[in-house]
Amino acid sequence: MSKRITNFDQSVEISDKATIGQGCHIGSRSRILGPAKIGNDVWLDTNVTIYGNVTVQDSTYIGSNCIIGYLRRQDLKQLIKDKSIENSVTGTTIIGKKCVIRPGSVIYVDSRMEDEVELGHNVILREEVSVGNRSLIGTNVVVDGNTTIGKGVSIQTGSYICKKSIIEDFVFLGPYCVLTNDRYVMRLEVELEGPTIKKGASIGGNSTIMPGVTIGEGSVVGAQAVVTENVADNSICVGIPARISKNVPASWKNLLEERYNKT
Amino acid sequence: MSKRITNFDQSVEISDKATIGQGCHIGSRSRILGPAKIGNDVWLDTNVTIYGNVTVQDSTYIGSNCIIGYLRRQDLKQLIKDKSIENSVTGTTIIGKKCVIRPGSVIYVDSRMEDEVELGHNVILREEVSVGNRSLIGTNVVVDGNTTIGKGVSIQTGSYICKKSIIEDFVFLGPYCVLTNDRYVMRLEVELEGPTIKKGASIGGNSTIMPGVTIGEGSVVGAQAVVTENVADNSICVGIPARISKNVPASWKNLLEERYNKT
Amino acid sequence: MSKRITNFDQSVEISDKATIGQGCHIGSRSRILGPAKIGNDVWLDTNVTIYGNVTVQDSTYIGSNCIIGYLRRQDLKQLIKDKSIENSVTGTTIIGKKCVIRPGSVIYVDSRMEDEVELGHNVILREEVSVGNRSLIGTNVVVDGNTTIGKGVSIQTGSYICKKSIIEDFVFLGPYCVLTNDRYVMRLEVELEGPTIKKGASIGGNSTIMPGVTIGEGSVVGAQAVVTENVADNSICVGIPARISKNVPASWKNLLEERYNKT
Repeated sequence: MSKRITNFDQSVEISDKATIGQGCHIGSRSRILGPAKIGNDVWLDTNVTIYGNVTVQDSTYIGSNCIIGYLRRQDLKQLIKDKSIENSVTGTTIIGKKCVIRPGSVIYVDSRMEDEVELGHNVILREEVSVGNRSLIGTNVVVDGNTTIGKGVSIQTGSYICKKSIIEDFVFLGPYCVLTNDRYVMRLEVELEGPTIKKGASIGGNSTIMPGVTIGEGSVVGAQAVVTENVADNSICVGIPARISKNVPASWKNLLEERYNKT
Repeated sequence: MSKRITNFDQSVEISDKATIGQGCHIGSRSRILGPAKIGNDVWLDTNVTIYGNVTVQDSTYIGSNCIIGYLRRQDLKQLIKDKSIENSVTGTTIIGKKCVIRPGSVIYVDSRMEDEVELGHNVILREEVSVGNRSLIGTNVVVDGNTTIGKGVSIQTGSYICKKSIIEDFVFLGPYCVLTNDRYVMRLEVELEGPTIKKGASIGGNSTIMPGVTIGEGSVVGAQAVVTENVADNSICVGIPARISKNVPASWKNLLEERYNKT
Repeated sequence: MSKRITNFDQSVEISDKATIGQGCHIGSRSRILGPAKIGNDVWLDTNVTIYGNVTVQDSTYIGSNCIIGYLRRQDLKQLIKDKSIENSVTGTTIIGKKCVIRPGSVIYVDSRMEDEVELGHNVILREEVSVGNRSLIGTNVVVDGNTTIGKGVSIQTGSYICKKSIIEDFVFLGPYCVLTNDRYVMRLEVELEGPTIKKGASIGGNSTIMPGVTIGEGSVVGAQAVVTENVADNSICVGIPARISKNVPASWKNLLEERYNKT
């Protein structure tokens, strides 16, 4: 059973406090710098960095140049003062089973993804982001902090999820959707308020969702719309600013939910 | 002729099956993991990975942290099961002569670029993408699979080319153009249908091109338009949804084609 | 005072011409390839490359996989011919004190940032870009060459600043703003002309600013607007094309300027 032996060369750096399961591949020059818990059959490619208290569960793939458990802003400042990674990294990060994290992605500390989540290239998940089972987050997507993403969600290439957003189960965001949270663009002191996209809603590509707006359950937003007000459940809305044009036809389904339940 | 000696240090990993020409620079920690054929005078910077059966022709530059011949989705799944790069990588990838591939770019297996193609930083070309002679693909552009890009094309920073797109010769796409292929945003079972941008068309920045739409030869689309229907040849169209406002003036030329033919 | 000793292992490559201050951390496999001047207490993480004549001042953090002093286009061509980094890199690059440059960012030669500038992940600053004190440039932002950015500016995630732009002090750009400089999308020979965003203006997310346009001091542009003409000082404009709807209310402030002056 030679496949069950964990494999790495001398260029790898592993903290004494880390534990590593069986059958892992730890690529050359990867660094596990703190008390990480790596499960069985995990594949870390080359030049991966894992900071602090990170759990990576069985059969997950982490591509080259990825960073897991990255430091939040104040911890970076601390690092520069202290020159100690160990003192600077606090919090815990959890990566579920059978996840795919493609090269160049960065997951901050205190984020958590459930099983079979799949990321594209250069995805950034800031601190305190959670991602549900089997969600897919495309290349170059940036998810800012304190955001919740449900299960079976599909976020296409290049979308931007601002701080304090809520994205429920089976939501579809087309490419380059932009969620925003500061209605007054730094001209009035207001609390940042991310959008809420309710269960099973679909947003067309290149749309902008304004701060604090709720998109109703099962609703559909057209491509390049600007949604400035709440959208009722099961509505189709289009335009700038977006207006409701009709209800979602009875024949439409949520393919993300259907496929999730089938497999 | 010391310049003609291929140069690398012990940190480099090269498969026995690879062949490497004269006068190459293989940067530290680069990895050539399969039966690659590297021509003469190729420059690979540091931490480049080349998977599988990749050809890189003479005098091409590949910047640091690039990945060439990257695994498609099902091959990644295979890799995690098998723990063998050799079994998981299938297909061939071809990079022409005198190409420039800037740091952080990733080119998937079964893609092919002709000579003197130039990529910005962090460009992602998915599987089965072809790019013609002397085309330029800007920083952060993502080209999804099964897409054809002609020669002399210029795709500016941050544009997104969806799966199954066709982009003919001398097309110009401004920054952050978004091509889409799913009209029903995962609410109806339809076949994905990418746009076709015909020879010499120019698309303004931040536009959205809807699924299956054809932009006619030599036509011009204004900035931030949403093109929902086919556009006739040599037309100017603007707005949301885009409407034809007039014909392209006789005095306008295609500078991409002119410059291509001149040099 | 062990903390004041500069620290690095054998995998680090440092040119004989470089000078390095006290208390630095030079991460594994980082490369300082020319006559760089590194101040005190600088943190370079792993796999950082510094080309040529680069100054990095005290207490700056440079994340993993960053490249500083990267080669402009013609220098890359030279590099491929000459096979000599030393001959190919010309010009100087200056990074101020207490800057934060997150992983994956690339700063070209002849750029300059003042003190306490903060960059997100994968930021690209092309050649001859200057950035003033304590400005913040978000993840995935690309700033093309010959661009000036003032002090106390905030550019949110994913925005694109084209060549020859001027962005004055305390400007706010929301996420995915696109500045453009070629009105004729490569169909007429015109000189590229970037926009000018005057002091304290705020631009909403996903907007497009057309070539040569000036946004007046203190003005506000709505989300996803297309600004085709100059905007007077202290105006609010919205829509496609953007029209002035009213003056900025007297109660609005510039929080970026206020916070800058307070601390």
